[in-house]
Amino acid sequence: MRVGIGTDVHRLEDGVPMWVAGLHFPDETAGLAGHSDGDVAAHAACDALFGAAGLGDMGSNYGTSEPEWAGASGVAFLTETARRVRAAGFEIGNVSVQIIGNRPRFAAHREHAQRVMAEALGATVTVTATTTDGLGLTGRGEGVAAVAVALLH
Amino acid sequence: MRVGIGTDVHRLEDGVPMWVAGLHFPDETAGLAGHSDGDVAAHAACDALFGAAGLGDMGSNYGTSEPEWAGASGVAFLTETARRVRAAGFEIGNVSVQIIGNRPRFAAHREHAQRVMAEALGATVTVTATTTDGLGLTGRGEGVAAVAVALLH
Amino acid sequence: MRVGIGTDVHRLEDGVPMWVAGLHFPDETAGLAGHSDGDVAAHAACDALFGAAGLGDMGSNYGTSEPEWAGASGVAFLTETARRVRAAGFEIGNVSVQIIGNRPRFAAHREHAQRVMAEALGATVTVTATTTDGLGLTGRGEGVAAVAVALLH
Ligand SMILES: [Zn+2]
Ligand SMILES: [Zn+2]
Ligand SMILES: [Zn+2]
Repeated sequence: MRVGIGTDVHRLEDGVPMWVAGLHFPDETAGLAGHSDGDVAAHAACDALFGAAGLGDMGSNYGTSEPEWAGASGVAFLTETARRVRAAGFEIGNVSVQIIGNRPRFAAHREHAQRVMAEALGATVTVTATTTDGLGLTGRGEGVAAVAVALLH
Repeated sequence: MRVGIGTDVHRLEDGVPMWVAGLHFPDETAGLAGHSDGDVAAHAACDALFGAAGLGDMGSNYGTSEPEWAGASGVAFLTETARRVRAAGFEIGNVSVQIIGNRPRFAAHREHAQRVMAEALGATVTVTATTTDGLGLTGRGEGVAAVAVALLH
Repeated sequence: MRVGIGTDVHRLEDGVPMWVAGLHFPDETAGLAGHSDGDVAAHAACDALFGAAGLGDMGSNYGTSEPEWAGASGVAFLTETARRVRAAGFEIGNVSVQIIGNRPRFAAHREHAQRVMAEALGATVTVTATTTDGLGLTGRGEGVAAVAVALLH
């Protein structure tokens, strides 16, 4: 059995579509910037899985040397990461992710997000959300962060 | 087996009683603000447990729609979270929490805090503490953060 | 089985040698300050191990009351932490660490760092790296952070 941890942060920008935890939030007026869709929850989950498996990280797997991944969705990263982790001989036990930020309003979408991410990984995924009491980069609304842990067999 | 992760941040405010990791620190001149007692260590532990169990998070379990939890203590949250996690069929393996901040001076109280939190959860809890070298929201003394992981069977 | 979590942050200072994840990065013009070599990855890993084992933390094990540890290397801390964790009756399953910051350029050194840290711990260590999109203390280049989880039997 192996544990892994991953974190991610993306900048909030007006007019960018908000994608988090595999879902689009069409009512949000700002979204997460990045050379992908900025899905911090999916990216943190992928790094937790890569860390547990010892397969590098998001940058080494999907970086600038692999242009086909520019602009990929969180679900695409999760699907391919699960495939690479299984190809290395691991089974995915579960992934737990926490979204840290003022936006999006996540609670009503938790079940849906968990279903979408679980389907992409073929394993149990749970998603929680919290804020930082107005403090730090997430509290000031500059960005959104996520942390994740993964358990592999 | 399932792992879960949780983090929390609360603002430091002069004149507020300091409660962290289930303990009151009467010598501190500032404490953690919030609609509860602001116990970041207990809240991070609860979110790690909820994340591992897939039972939502602090907000969905004890949020504004459940006014009886306004002002609740860290120990009360831990006790009820353990009850909900067990009611869902899980056994709690252990919880590891790290307090991140300049205050309170925690080292002399570690054993006591671990005992109080372990009794509330009915499981092994360990608490570490660190600082951030004067950087970020915790280093500037704006608030205190905590991170936690939980292992469930 | 037990899980543990640890985080660490050190300040980036011009002219200080850069040591991270057990390696020296001679091409970096700034390094991590601290009363040790400032190796955030090693320190986060040690706190994750101490947290999992319930043996206190970096401060209580190697603090100012133990002056022989002033200026110790990350590898020295990892080696002694593994010894103390095993002396308490635990076996180390694995450790996963993520470095969070703009510097050093880590990707080309991952395999080497993992080997050095794994040799110090006598157990599997994986290291990932990420940035925070220019935000927060790591994004502004004020410091470098690390997070780690450990699994013990
Ligand atoms: Zn990302
Ligand atoms: Zn809280
Ligand atoms: Zn340190």
